[in-house]
Amino acid sequence: MKILAAIDSFKGSMTSEKANQSVKDALPQHDVITFPIADGGEGTVDAFVGVMNGEVKKATITGVNGDAYIGQWGWVEQEKTAVIEVAEGAGLIQANKETLHPKNHTSYGVGEQITQALNQGASTIILGLGGSATTDGGLGLLQALGVVFKDAQNKELKKLPVKLGQVHSIDASGLDERVKKVNWLLASDVSNPLLGEKGAVHVFGEQKGLSKDELSTYDKNMSEFSNLVIKETGKDQRFTEGAGAAGGIGYAALSFFPCEFQSGLSLLAEKGNLEQFIQDVDLVITGEGKFDDQSLGGKVPIGISRLAKKHSVPALLFAGKIDSDRTAIEEENLHALIPIVDAPMTLSEAMENGQPLLLKAVKRSMHLIDLIGKIKGMKA
Amino acid sequence: MKILAAIDSFKGSMTSEKANQSVKDALPQHDVITFPIADGGEGTVDAFVGVMNGEVKKATITGVNGDAYIGQWGWVEQEKTAVIEVAEGAGLIQANKETLHPKNHTSYGVGEQITQALNQGASTIILGLGGSATTDGGLGLLQALGVVFKDAQNKELKKLPVKLGQVHSIDASGLDERVKKVNWLLASDVSNPLLGEKGAVHVFGEQKGLSKDELSTYDKNMSEFSNLVIKETGKDQRFTEGAGAAGGIGYAALSFFPCEFQSGLSLLAEKGNLEQFIQDVDLVITGEGKFDDQSLGGKVPIGISRLAKKHSVPALLFAGKIDSDRTAIEEENLHALIPIVDAPMTLSEAMENGQPLLLKAVKRSMHLIDLIGKIKGMKA
Repeated sequence: MKILAAIDSFKGSMTSEKANQSVKDALPQHDVITFPIADGGEGTVDAFVGVMNGEVKKATITGVNGDAYIGQWGWVEQEKTAVIEVAEGAGLIQANKETLHPKNHTSYGVGEQITQALNQGASTIILGLGGSATTDGGLGLLQALGVVFKDAQNKELKKLPVKLGQVHSIDASGLDERVKKVNWLLASDVSNPLLGEKGAVHVFGEQKGLSKDELSTYDKNMSEFSNLVIKETGKDQRFTEGAGAAGGIGYAALSFFPCEFQSGLSLLAEKGNLEQFIQDVDLVITGEGKFDDQSLGGKVPIGISRLAKKHSVPALLFAGKIDSDRTAIEEENLHALIPIVDAPMTLSEAMENGQPLLLKAVKRSMHLIDLIGKIKGMKA
Repeated sequence: MKILAAIDSFKGSMTSEKANQSVKDALPQHDVITFPIADGGEGTVDAFVGVMNGEVKKATITGVNGDAYIGQWGWVEQEKTAVIEVAEGAGLIQANKETLHPKNHTSYGVGEQITQALNQGASTIILGLGGSATTDGGLGLLQALGVVFKDAQNKELKKLPVKLGQVHSIDASGLDERVKKVNWLLASDVSNPLLGEKGAVHVFGEQKGLSKDELSTYDKNMSEFSNLVIKETGKDQRFTEGAGAAGGIGYAALSFFPCEFQSGLSLLAEKGNLEQFIQDVDLVITGEGKFDDQSLGGKVPIGISRLAKKHSVPALLFAGKIDSDRTAIEEENLHALIPIVDAPMTLSEAMENGQPLLLKAVKRSMHLIDLIGKIKGMKA
C-alpha cells in the first residue's frame, strides 16, 4: 500500500518529522512517504525547508530575552524565498522560564532575521507567526528594521525591550525600503484580531506570563500603540484577521509590509505540492496531540483529511488523546480516530513515550486493516 | 460479519457479560453472538447457567463472615447438574473489608450449598474454585457436610469459624454419603499445590488479609491439618495440582470427593459447546483487564484464541492495558492486541469507564477492518 504520513507535531512530545518517522518505522512493508506539518509555529522553518528542498541558515541575533542567540531560518535559493519563524526569533521555547513575562521579551531578533534574509536577496519571505513569547505588537521587529519609537520627551527609545506604554510617537521614515518590495506570506493558524476580548492580549497573554489583572492594561497600551501606527501608516489593520497573531507581530506586518495572510498548512501544502503526493497514495495518516470537537474548527489534521477527500483517499487520525464520543468522522474523511496510549498512564508518561506509542498504534491499526484478507485467507 | 464475543471479566471493572454486551452494542450492523467467560471465580454460576440454559437457585446459607446470607447457585435440570462457586459461598467480595482476615472467615456456606444441590438431586456438581476469602483448607465446607473436627480434649469444635490450629483429630464417618456418588468437576485456573512457597498460604494469603509475618505459621497449621486429613482418608493430595485453589478447598475436595480437576475455561467451553459457536463465525473477539507476557501462560483469552485457530477463525484481543512490545501474537492467532484507553488517564478512571471505552475501541477497530473496502470503494 502507498501511504502518506502527514502528522502535526504532538506539542511537547514530538515534532511532525518524528511522528511521521514513527509511521514509516511501523510499516516497513508499505511504501510510506512523509510530509512534515507546521502551522506557522515551532518547526515551520524545518517543514518548509523540507518540502521546498531548501537549506537552514544560522546567524547571531538578539534573542527574545535580549541576549545574543544563534538563530536559524530557512533559505530556498531557487525561489529566492526565506522562511522565518517567530518561534525561533522571539520564541516561548527560547524564553527564560523564571522571568516569563512580556515586559522582559522583545521581537527584535525577528527583525534582524528579516534583515539577514533581505541581505541574502530574498524576494519572498514566509513568516511563521506562532509560538512567540512576545506581546509587543511587533515593536521590536520594526525597531530592528529601522523604525524609530520616541517617548513623551521626543527622545528615541533604544534600550530593549521597549515597552508599548513608553511610546509616544513613531517615525517610520528609516524603515528598510526593501521590505516593501518583498512578497510577504504570513503563515499562521491564528485568526484573532489585535485588540479586545478576542485579541492578542486577552487570548494569549496569560500563556506568556501576564497575570489576569494585567490583561486590561496591556490591551489598552496595545490599543494606544496601534493608534500611533495608524497615524504613521494611514492604514487600520487592528481588526484584520491574524493581526493578533504572535503577540501583534501580525499587526505590524499587515501595517508596514505588503502581506498576504494564509493558514500555515495551506501555504505549506501549496509550497510542498501536498496535493500531488495525496493523489498518488491509497491512504493518508494524519494526527495531532489531542483531538477534540474543537479540532473540527480547522486545525491541521482536518485540513489534511479534507484535501485527501478531494482526491478520494481515506484518512486516519492518531492522537495522544481522543476527547470525543465519536470513533470516526466520516463526513470529514476521518475513517477512524485512534488513540496512541496503550494503558492507563499519566500525561507525562504519554508525552515521554510519544514515538513508541504512535509506532505501536500504527502497527496495530495496520493489523486490523489487513484482517479482512486473513478472515478470507484462513477459511480458504 | 458473524462475530463471537468471548471476553473474560475485566476484574473490578466489568463482568464478562458486560464486556460481551459492549461488543454487541458497538457492532449493531454485525451478527454478534456472546459467550460468557468464567475461570472458576466470580461469575462462574452465571456463565454456566448461561451457556447450559439453566436456572439460578437462591437459599440462605452461612456467609463467609458467619452471618446468614442469601447465596445463589446454578441448576441445570436436564442434566441434573449443579454449579456452585466459592466466590459466592465464601467469597472475597462478600467479606467485610474492615475485618478482612482468614481467621474471621469460613467456607461453611459452600458446604451448605452442596447439601442444597444434593437435595435437589444433583448427579454432577461443578464447583468453581476462585475468589475465596478463606484459607481454611475446606474445613468449614467439610463441617457442613458432616465431618467432625475435634480439639486436643477430643471435644467437637463447633463454633464458626473453626481455626486450623485448633484441630487435633478428624472423624469423617458422618460425611454425607451422597458426595461420593456425585460426579465432581472442579473448575479453576489455579494449579498451585496446598503447601509451601507455591501453596495456598504463601501465594494467596496476603490478598486475603494475612500479614507477611503470619504466612509461615498459617502454612505450618495447614500442613498439620493436611496430615490429619491423610490419616483419615488414606490419600495424600497435598501436592496435586489445584489442591491450593480457594484457600485449600481444592485439597478438601480432592481428598474426600471423587473429583476431576479442569481449567474453568475448558469446562465451560465443553459444557457450552464453544467450539461449535466458533466454527460458525468469521471473527472471535476476546479480551481481559490486562494483557502481558504472563497472559501467554494459559489464561482465558489465549485459550479462546487457540480454539479459534483450530477452526481457522482469527481472533482479536482487547485489554485495559497492553503491557507488551508486541502489537499482535500471530502464532497464537491474536491478530491485534488493542488497548481500550483513549487518553492518558488513571487506572480508576479506566476501570470506571470500562464499558464505554471497550465499546469505542471495538467500533474503532471495525472502522479499520472495513477500511480496505473503502480504499477500493473511494477510488472506484
